[in-house]
Amino acid sequence: MPVNLTAPDPAQLHPVPGVRIGVTEAGVRKAKRKDLTVFLLDEGSAVGGVFTQNRFCAAPVQVCREHLAAGFGVRALVINTGNANAGTGEDGLVRARSTCIALARLLEVAPEQILPFSTGVIMETLPNDRIAAGLPAALDDASDAHWGRAAEGIMTTDTVPKAFSRQVTLGGATVTITGISKGAGMIRPNMATMLGFLATDARIAPALLQPLARTLAEGSFNRVTIDGDTSTNDSFVVIATGKTGPAIDSLDSADGQALLAAMQTVARDLAQAIVRDGEGATKFITVQVEGGRDATECRQTAYAVAHSPLVKTAFFASDPNLGRILAAVGYAGIADLDQTRIELHLDDVHVVTRGGRHPDYREEDGQRVMKKSEIVVRIGLGRGEASDTVWTCDLSHDYVSINADYRS
Amino acid sequence: MPVNLTAPDPAQLHPVPGVRIGVTEAGVRKAKRKDLTVFLLDEGSAVGGVFTQNRFCAAPVQVCREHLAAGFGVRALVINTGNANAGTGEDGLVRARSTCIALARLLEVAPEQILPFSTGVIMETLPNDRIAAGLPAALDDASDAHWGRAAEGIMTTDTVPKAFSRQVTLGGATVTITGISKGAGMIRPNMATMLGFLATDARIAPALLQPLARTLAEGSFNRVTIDGDTSTNDSFVVIATGKTGPAIDSLDSADGQALLAAMQTVARDLAQAIVRDGEGATKFITVQVEGGRDATECRQTAYAVAHSPLVKTAFFASDPNLGRILAAVGYAGIADLDQTRIELHLDDVHVVTRGGRHPDYREEDGQRVMKKSEIVVRIGLGRGEASDTVWTCDLSHDYVSINADYRS
Repeated sequence: MPVNLTAPDPAQLHPVPGVRIGVTEAGVRKAKRKDLTVFLLDEGSAVGGVFTQNRFCAAPVQVCREHLAAGFGVRALVINTGNANAGTGEDGLVRARSTCIALARLLEVAPEQILPFSTGVIMETLPNDRIAAGLPAALDDASDAHWGRAAEGIMTTDTVPKAFSRQVTLGGATVTITGISKGAGMIRPNMATMLGFLATDARIAPALLQPLARTLAEGSFNRVTIDGDTSTNDSFVVIATGKTGPAIDSLDSADGQALLAAMQTVARDLAQAIVRDGEGATKFITVQVEGGRDATECRQTAYAVAHSPLVKTAFFASDPNLGRILAAVGYAGIADLDQTRIELHLDDVHVVTRGGRHPDYREEDGQRVMKKSEIVVRIGLGRGEASDTVWTCDLSHDYVSINADYRS
Repeated sequence: MPVNLTAPDPAQLHPVPGVRIGVTEAGVRKAKRKDLTVFLLDEGSAVGGVFTQNRFCAAPVQVCREHLAAGFGVRALVINTGNANAGTGEDGLVRARSTCIALARLLEVAPEQILPFSTGVIMETLPNDRIAAGLPAALDDASDAHWGRAAEGIMTTDTVPKAFSRQVTLGGATVTITGISKGAGMIRPNMATMLGFLATDARIAPALLQPLARTLAEGSFNRVTIDGDTSTNDSFVVIATGKTGPAIDSLDSADGQALLAAMQTVARDLAQAIVRDGEGATKFITVQVEGGRDATECRQTAYAVAHSPLVKTAFFASDPNLGRILAAVGYAGIADLDQTRIELHLDDVHVVTRGGRHPDYREEDGQRVMKKSEIVVRIGLGRGEASDTVWTCDLSHDYVSINADYRS
């Protein structure tokens, strides 16, 4: 059961002019599953993408990087589930490229104008023949109303599809931003998440797309973690079709700022949705670290807390065994941390002051907060003005069950 | 059920001349538990210790460091379970010191000659009055035959006591090395483990004890992990009573080398015993990384694999979902790692070559190894001659159950 997250109402997902989506069942790994999704982008669309920093990045990630670098303009994305095409060596690259070639032929564009994405089991051979065979049906299905279907089409261990949509008025025109994402394990994105796609019809200068993708990922996907495992396939793609509104040549302009804020909101909703639907998650936890010398040490501390299996199991049990949070803060890697300056709040409850239990703290207050489904852990380092935030979930029996069974 | 580890036979634990041990029930947290242990060391004993690098180190760890630095010589150790006296601020320090003062009075030595140790729940007030009240009974119990009782006396979530003993002949004399340790969660020692104590009657020059403790910890406790959580209370103490054998003025001499090897074996056995009895552990896994540029990057990679919840749950399930190992290697932090040079063996099975599935690898071979209770994961980085090894266990339902219930 995801934490305070339900499947999106397809009627609430605004189409993005210039983007059509087709979904089909290609039988990549199992029959009768929507496992192949194609995004078709009108000519003139601008695309930026950020990808996993995992050195064992998947073949499709390598091909995406090459194709974006080629600069021919992107006309389609092709996404399969059921197989990650990672840890597949040279053969995996050949198969990822062959999928692009097959789609390029159907669309009469260059293979470099296709971006391929895969998600699923690592180290198995991609059945690219089945994917190629499924492409015509995916193209037949293409419609600008299929964002909800696409959110379903990219799911693996996710329990609900994830899609968010917003509109913002720029220069009198209504500009749309719609995006989808998927999780739900091997989630500790480093540049991007497993898969996230965000599109807008705004007229953003093409040169801005790459920095925009990076900025959006930093404030969203790069701030969530489920299990600390950075995937081989993380990919986050931002599309601007340029159909609507004023030209955005700078993100610092008033229109640029308004658009960025709206896109950031959708990106954060998508990233948080992955945590809310994290494998086995029963709680959504915000870890906020303040008073650091710089944002990096705040983030590092927040991740240490967010990754600690002991902290995560305590949240699962609603047990205010909060010393575990202090232990994680202590081993987060700040060499000259002074434990006598640490403060800890759990929502509104002041738990720790000057590194020791707050004299007014009572176990029942901690207990009351621990029972909630959304909890804010606020840690003060007492050594500066910087802060940062990470979102995570608890570690439950279901996480173990799901990952002990994933392939069966 | 610990993995291939049974309780030690007390008859096999050789007394160490110069060391007597007393254990009692002080009711620190619960009644009718051996929770207070005192080590009494003859005058002239030399002691070295290494302690957690967690910046939130417990009050007793801070006091141990002070007392060792004072250089008056150590005459006793006092160890309580049930309460970690960590995250307790200034008050915790006062209580740790008061325990030393109480024992010092009974023994007619200086408080600085006592080293205090605590393990248990973090952020609760140490009931030092109960500990002080229990000290006379612990002293009455003192005997050189009580190593087995001591191993029981320091247990928390451990399911079996951990103690090992060896003898080595130096200059015609039989020298004994006996040690105990405890786990079993919050285990990713950084300098030392939760608690480990190793004593010998060898005549080691006092100045050698501190470097010796560091060397022994490096090859043993600093190479194991259960959940990646570095404790606030890790302490590893090495005692040499100087009662027997030739004077050891250098660890590079023939006698020094023989002694070091024997001590290293006991330290490694103690450290591995903690993993074998790791919370919920069903498998003992050796992660061996070779072909690195230096030992540091090998160790870093081994820890990434050993900490990955996805790798650990796959071992629990005996599921050869080995791509998860590649993913962990990829995010271990070697920025210029070349995935096309990675090799992976599981015991004798060659799984990955040049970053992709080995052509001869068959799932049933991987499955066969995954079902074993002891597994060696061997990773080749293909970029140098260095290597390092880490020992860990799997992540099971029981880990979640134990840590969701720990305080109840």
